Amino acid sequence: MKKGFASDNNSGVHPAILKAIENANAGHVVGYGDDPYTQKAIGMFKDKFGEETEIFFVFNGTGANVLGLSTITQSFNSIICAETAHIQEDECGAPEKFTGCKLLPVEPVNGKLTPELIQHHLKGFDFEHHSQPKVISISQVTEMGTVYQPTEIIALADLAHKNNMFLHMDGARIANAAVALDMDFREFTKDCGVDVLSFGGTKNGMMMGEAVVFFNPKLTKLTKYIRKQSMQLYSKMRFVGAQFQAYFENDLWKQNAAHANKMARLLESEVAKIPQIKLTQAVEANGVFAIVPPEIIEPLRERFFFYLWNDAKNEVRWMTSFDTTEEDIYGFTDLIKQLLE
Amino acid sequence: MKKGFASDNNSGVHPAILKAIENANAGHVVGYGDDPYTQKAIGMFKDKFGEETEIFFVFNGTGANVLGLSTITQSFNSIICAETAHIQEDECGAPEKFTGCKLLPVEPVNGKLTPELIQHHLKGFDFEHHSQPKVISISQVTEMGTVYQPTEIIALADLAHKNNMFLHMDGARIANAAVALDMDFREFTKDCGVDVLSFGGTKNGMMMGEAVVFFNPKLTKLTKYIRKQSMQLYSKMRFVGAQFQAYFENDLWKQNAAHANKMARLLESEVAKIPQIKLTQAVEANGVFAIVPPEIIEPLRERFFFYLWNDAKNEVRWMTSFDTTEEDIYGFTDLIKQLLE
Amino acid sequence: MKKGFASDNNSGVHPAILKAIENANAGHVVGYGDDPYTQKAIGMFKDKFGEETEIFFVFNGTGANVLGLSTITQSFNSIICAETAHIQEDECGAPEKFTGCKLLPVEPVNGKLTPELIQHHLKGFDFEHHSQPKVISISQVTEMGTVYQPTEIIALADLAHKNNMFLHMDGARIANAAVALDMDFREFTKDCGVDVLSFGGTKNGMMMGEAVVFFNPKLTKLTKYIRKQSMQLYSKMRFVGAQFQAYFENDLWKQNAAHANKMARLLESEVAKIPQIKLTQAVEANGVFAIVPPEIIEPLRERFFFYLWNDAKNEVRWMTSFDTTEEDIYGFTDLIKQLLE
Amino acid sequence: MKKGFASDNNSGVHPAILKAIENANAGHVVGYGDDPYTQKAIGMFKDKFGEETEIFFVFNGTGANVLGLSTITQSFNSIICAETAHIQEDECGAPEKFTGCKLLPVEPVNGKLTPELIQHHLKGFDFEHHSQPKVISISQVTEMGTVYQPTEIIALADLAHKNNMFLHMDGARIANAAVALDMDFREFTKDCGVDVLSFGGTKNGMMMGEAVVFFNPKLTKLTKYIRKQSMQLYSKMRFVGAQFQAYFENDLWKQNAAHANKMARLLESEVAKIPQIKLTQAVEANGVFAIVPPEIIEPLRERFFFYLWNDAKNEVRWMTSFDTTEEDIYGFTDLIKQLLE
Repeated sequence: MKKGFASDNNSGVHPAILKAIENANAGHVVGYGDDPYTQKAIGMFKDKFGEETEIFFVFNGTGANVLGLSTITQSFNSIICAETAHIQEDECGAPEKFTGCKLLPVEPVNGKLTPELIQHHLKGFDFEHHSQPKVISISQVTEMGTVYQPTEIIALADLAHKNNMFLHMDGARIANAAVALDMDFREFTKDCGVDVLSFGGTKNGMMMGEAVVFFNPKLTKLTKYIRKQSMQLYSKMRFVGAQFQAYFENDLWKQNAAHANKMARLLESEVAKIPQIKLTQAVEANGVFAIVPPEIIEPLRERFFFYLWNDAKNEVRWMTSFDTTEEDIYGFTDLIKQLLE
Repeated sequence: MKKGFASDNNSGVHPAILKAIENANAGHVVGYGDDPYTQKAIGMFKDKFGEETEIFFVFNGTGANVLGLSTITQSFNSIICAETAHIQEDECGAPEKFTGCKLLPVEPVNGKLTPELIQHHLKGFDFEHHSQPKVISISQVTEMGTVYQPTEIIALADLAHKNNMFLHMDGARIANAAVALDMDFREFTKDCGVDVLSFGGTKNGMMMGEAVVFFNPKLTKLTKYIRKQSMQLYSKMRFVGAQFQAYFENDLWKQNAAHANKMARLLESEVAKIPQIKLTQAVEANGVFAIVPPEIIEPLRERFFFYLWNDAKNEVRWMTSFDTTEEDIYGFTDLIKQLLE
Repeated sequence: MKKGFASDNNSGVHPAILKAIENANAGHVVGYGDDPYTQKAIGMFKDKFGEETEIFFVFNGTGANVLGLSTITQSFNSIICAETAHIQEDECGAPEKFTGCKLLPVEPVNGKLTPELIQHHLKGFDFEHHSQPKVISISQVTEMGTVYQPTEIIALADLAHKNNMFLHMDGARIANAAVALDMDFREFTKDCGVDVLSFGGTKNGMMMGEAVVFFNPKLTKLTKYIRKQSMQLYSKMRFVGAQFQAYFENDLWKQNAAHANKMARLLESEVAKIPQIKLTQAVEANGVFAIVPPEIIEPLRERFFFYLWNDAKNEVRWMTSFDTTEEDIYGFTDLIKQLLE
Repeated sequence: MKKGFASDNNSGVHPAILKAIENANAGHVVGYGDDPYTQKAIGMFKDKFGEETEIFFVFNGTGANVLGLSTITQSFNSIICAETAHIQEDECGAPEKFTGCKLLPVEPVNGKLTPELIQHHLKGFDFEHHSQPKVISISQVTEMGTVYQPTEIIALADLAHKNNMFLHMDGARIANAAVALDMDFREFTKDCGVDVLSFGGTKNGMMMGEAVVFFNPKLTKLTKYIRKQSMQLYSKMRFVGAQFQAYFENDLWKQNAAHANKMARLLESEVAKIPQIKLTQAVEANGVFAIVPPEIIEPLRERFFFYLWNDAKNEVRWMTSFDTTEEDIYGFTDLIKQLLE
């Protein structure tokens, strides 16, 4: 199929990842994670985040978010998040169903939460009638393609901890954030006070597999049972472990994300030249949001598939990926211009 | 790692499956199943089971069982199963957690349920104090390595339907059953009255991916939401679709399962020659159960890993796989003999 | 204890209700609702709402809301409500825990929802990633003491039904609404398109007991099981049935609610004379909201207990009840004046 | 209605309890338990069980069991109980739905569990595939009318604690047990190692209201939230508090239970004289189980209502209550004899 800008998960798998899967395919290994590939990959995570880190591999991003949130909540808790958050908008209620918690959506600014925006939800503590606030959940990169700066994360973590709460980060696109910030993963997660991280790989060239990363090992005494009960324990786990190994070796993750981000900036700059199109969000990672003349949307989508973000406003979302090429960008913007003539 | 007899999921992936994954890796496709690989694979399932069949791919066996059972129950229902069933013993309570239902375990005979064995649970209908019986769940192949005959399945299906209940089949090893019965899948599922089937692939040479197969499409109006909410919707679904395509092409499933079953029979016949070992179950598929002198268990496991089934009785379980070789079997039985001398 | 204005549930039980309980205490009756008192009370509900109505008694308001919502949702649904709604703010997450649904809070105007306010949540239908909107839930009287007019209810019901959704009404204070509207219950519930109603009694002089009223009997085929599983089936049900009989006889409900509403208006008019106090909501039923000089709040609460509604704004809530007297009101406003001197 | 032997909850309320409700009906008190009646009743529980006891009032027995079990489990745990247990047979799956846990039913001997009977379920600890055993739950009085001796309870408590598990007691008929054992409540609960107790009142002359009693206060830090979220927090709590006060004053509980037990023994001795009837359980509290000629069951039930326990065996259950009279017994046995002629 022709490449498009629908989602970074419409891409395939990076060849180096596929190769790693193949290489892991020899002989028998114990299932469910007690194999050398998984153990090696966990070691690489610990190299990045510190020995005092606990890592649990799961199948997908929703599974990662739910496992992380389930570990740090009780059913009578509430979870504060942006109203655009994946856990609020795109998981069909999996967090509520599995954790029993209430989600408290907040209208974000530029896709981001701030202490001011969520302050009004920090109430009712110790009052048994009220769902007890326990987690602030942010997405890094946000669903609007923006990236939290470390100081912004620290402010939220401090607020959370001051209220005996946790800071959860949905890092489905964490590699794109690291590249955007030009930082190691640790610098804007653990070092900023994040407690639990969904570390994504699938949207950046892996086949499947995400990691739930806990920076306080004491939290995870029971996580293995929750993972199994939430149907996220993979029998042939070696094939996730092997992928993460390849993902970290030679900084493949960085190459992929850097490329995707670069393609988004190229798209941004090309689109900025087209007066009929209005960019609606800062392009900080691999997503471009724009308001587009409605008559060109369908013809554009036929050739380069993508999603409408806000029907009412004719706002569209264009995602770039590790396999997006300059030709894809120019072909796309050429078509836009052509359709607008 | 050296091959062992721990589980058919300790094997890797059949080369033809890997090849199919590679071949599916070109370009972009829409995520979450609306891609040609997934659609093709669904078509192949319909070829086998009839057009009036609905198929939902999920990540793993627990996910398949939970999705199937969630679709056909309400939280106040009960599910009757063998006390050895995977849903009872090996899913850490995922069925209870996700469906809210009560599981009613029954001591099976040769791993199997019969109408007589479950009759006493068919009570309390319409009585609001009592969890309402709604599903009989069987495993084919059973967890004891035995295989239900079609007449046995029909008897259970008839009993279920007579009571306004459903018959669910956990087919994690359905290919081994088909080979054992020398039948098409349909002949001992849909044609016998099974309502919902967990169709496994992972234990027979796939990398991951199972299918939930519904023989009554009316049941599945809401299943897509349940799949998403149960964290079992895979973004890069094409890689499950491509695997199932390869699995069905050239009857790869049959080759793999036939080989595994054959290896189990070889192991059975070799072990039968060793008087100190007592086979405890009929070997009808790819599992061999035996009582073994306790002193040889640990040295044996060091070389060929496997699991104790019943510690108290020194009963062990040996599983063969598509990649088990005659050399593996002879090497194993030679070691047994050596250790017993 | 001295009477106050904290909540209409700080009152005791109306003597006629107590008398009815006593009168129902003779001999044995079958438990769980199959008794003449319960059946009589159900008949009285049917007289009010029509024969085609199904009524389920439960213990309390949270139980009533959860039973109603559970009956008309699946776990992947969402429920739209005011951010002030009892189900959102005051049930510690019971609706999420028990139904699995997502609650979508909306900032109300005067405590009320309107079609405009909720329109943006009516999206994502048929899209499996998105919790499927299924219920609009309103409170009558609202938590801000305001009352929906029939036309307002009809507008929400029409919007719900047009989208294949239900309209749920939390009628914890429905008697006060009926008096405020000078209508029969049916005129502003069933006749306006409400599908499910939590019919409260406890806040208006009963000891305990609420009714879940379904205007479409087809919805309730399974409700009796949900009631039992949600721990809301009362063994000695006759004592709820007897209370509702007394509640409806001689329009006791109306006397009680009319008196409470009248006392609220008296309080409103007396308070309106005090320039330092600012009323913040229209007084339409039995609640009075006001901004009060902060220095008098604690001394006032010592003599007449009540709750702060919004700490930041020094907004308080004063509830009147069937047993509030004119002396209570004048004593209270006299104290206010005294404290303000 | 004529009195029968259906259940001790078919009785009404003891006059002293009703009187206490009336007496508690003056003026306003704070809702949800922070009132003098509730606090006084809690003090009386502490007098009986020791200062280091936490007590939570709920509406009914199912609510009590679920609140107790929810407090001491996580969703991936299992709960071992008799297959006749109320939590297994008569709560429509409330424990599974609310706790997420697996219930492991065991065939009891004389309605009772023993360490030997449950030993085979104490397995799979630390194995993430297996629901983790966490609770042994017993009923005192058992559902078969038998009573655990302290040594039997100690044996189960020791086994539980040795395995890092809890012992839960469903004391819906605990007063009848105390009388049967001629002991204080504490002697066969806390002093025997019970961790959590459902303390019933409704079946022994109260109108409604049960208490969940925790003997380790550390367990209960979060219980108040669970109670609210499980819809078991009563607004006008004073009316439960007042009942328990009256229940404990002048040992009303003991008078009621002693009378019910005495009536059961009278029924037993009278029935023992009728050769066509075979008693099937020891009569240790207020339940009598018997096999009865099938032809007299319906005519008997018409005059004195009761339930069949086991249809297949024509086994019936007759419960006596605080309000059963000698005349009731003799009238009943006379009718039996008459019908058998």
